[in-house]
Amino acid sequence: MTRTRLSPVERRAQLLDLGMVLLAERGLDDLSIDVLAEHAGISRGLLYHYFSDKRDFHLAVLRRMSEEVVAITAPPTGGTPMTRMMASLEAYVGFVGTNRAAYASFLRAARSGDAEFHQIYEESRTALLDRIFEVSDAEELAALGLYDDPRGHLLVRGWSALVEETVMAWLEDPAGLSREELLTLLTAALPGITLAVQPTPR
Amino acid sequence: MTRTRLSPVERRAQLLDLGMVLLAERGLDDLSIDVLAEHAGISRGLLYHYFSDKRDFHLAVLRRMSEEVVAITAPPTGGTPMTRMMASLEAYVGFVGTNRAAYASFLRAARSGDAEFHQIYEESRTALLDRIFEVSDAEELAALGLYDDPRGHLLVRGWSALVEETVMAWLEDPAGLSREELLTLLTAALPGITLAVQPTPR
Repeated sequence: MTRTRLSPVERRAQLLDLGMVLLAERGLDDLSIDVLAEHAGISRGLLYHYFSDKRDFHLAVLRRMSEEVVAITAPPTGGTPMTRMMASLEAYVGFVGTNRAAYASFLRAARSGDAEFHQIYEESRTALLDRIFEVSDAEELAALGLYDDPRGHLLVRGWSALVEETVMAWLEDPAGLSREELLTLLTAALPGITLAVQPTPR
Repeated sequence: MTRTRLSPVERRAQLLDLGMVLLAERGLDDLSIDVLAEHAGISRGLLYHYFSDKRDFHLAVLRRMSEEVVAITAPPTGGTPMTRMMASLEAYVGFVGTNRAAYASFLRAARSGDAEFHQIYEESRTALLDRIFEVSDAEELAALGLYDDPRGHLLVRGWSALVEETVMAWLEDPAGLSREELLTLLTAALPGITLAVQPTPR
């Protein structure tokens, strides 16, 4: 870690980036303030200016990860719903591919039964999924068999679980699918699902 | 719990069923031998004849749950791949609906990062997914855009994540979908996904 003069906010962000890197090499349980201090080359005492305790540090790292995923997958403003979604998914696959072990730790934490960890995950997932409805108008959505209603959100949520599982499994074993084919599949799966039952406009 | 004379095997099975019921009211962490003893109305000492410790008991309860899911979702032998899948999914939705809190605890345990818990979950999932390939011949599968190869297994795995997520979310909030519509959707989603990319027969 460089020793340039950073503002406290910048320094904290840098420590969180380091936290994400360290998370790739160990589970959240083994990510202590000691480990962070050692790798950041600064004292434990100084770290407690940034994080009140291990738990606070963990929550901040998970939030950082979740914000990164949301930021990096921001879709382009132009194009069709499908090209926008493809662009988002490409960024998602890129991010998860680059930060695979850390992202796996993030998912494990989110699903461990810890309510706060789960909430951080849910917030980012909701942000990602709401975006699908926000960046398309009603006519574009209808062409995908999607309506901005509870049912539409349920379908998109199911699809997002498919995306997450398929991407993690594909990174482990591509099973003969190129990245291009994977992205095409994930994108096409949404209308594949939503159009599978006759949509009921309301 | 009735006091009829049971064989040790039957008694153990009965204790595991009770374990599943108790799991619905608390997480795995709070499911102790003490709690089991109290609800079974038998002594801790006797319980240690069946389970060597809390961990052994937990593993056995999770295995029981996983075997139940596999057994209860066994598809009928007749019919088309789609009617067989619909029947399996109906049984799955019924089981998860009846045992919702216990199943949620099961999923949380499976995803907590505990390797043995995860393996129990993976074994049942693999058994469920392999069945899709086993109960259909190559021609039936091809009509669904499915081939019994690594790619086909990857697609089915992604679909199974969609099923799990959608069913749990639907139980929490049906979002205007009837059970019938849910089952139609889950069944139709598989060919919806597999046919989304042009299948490459090999």
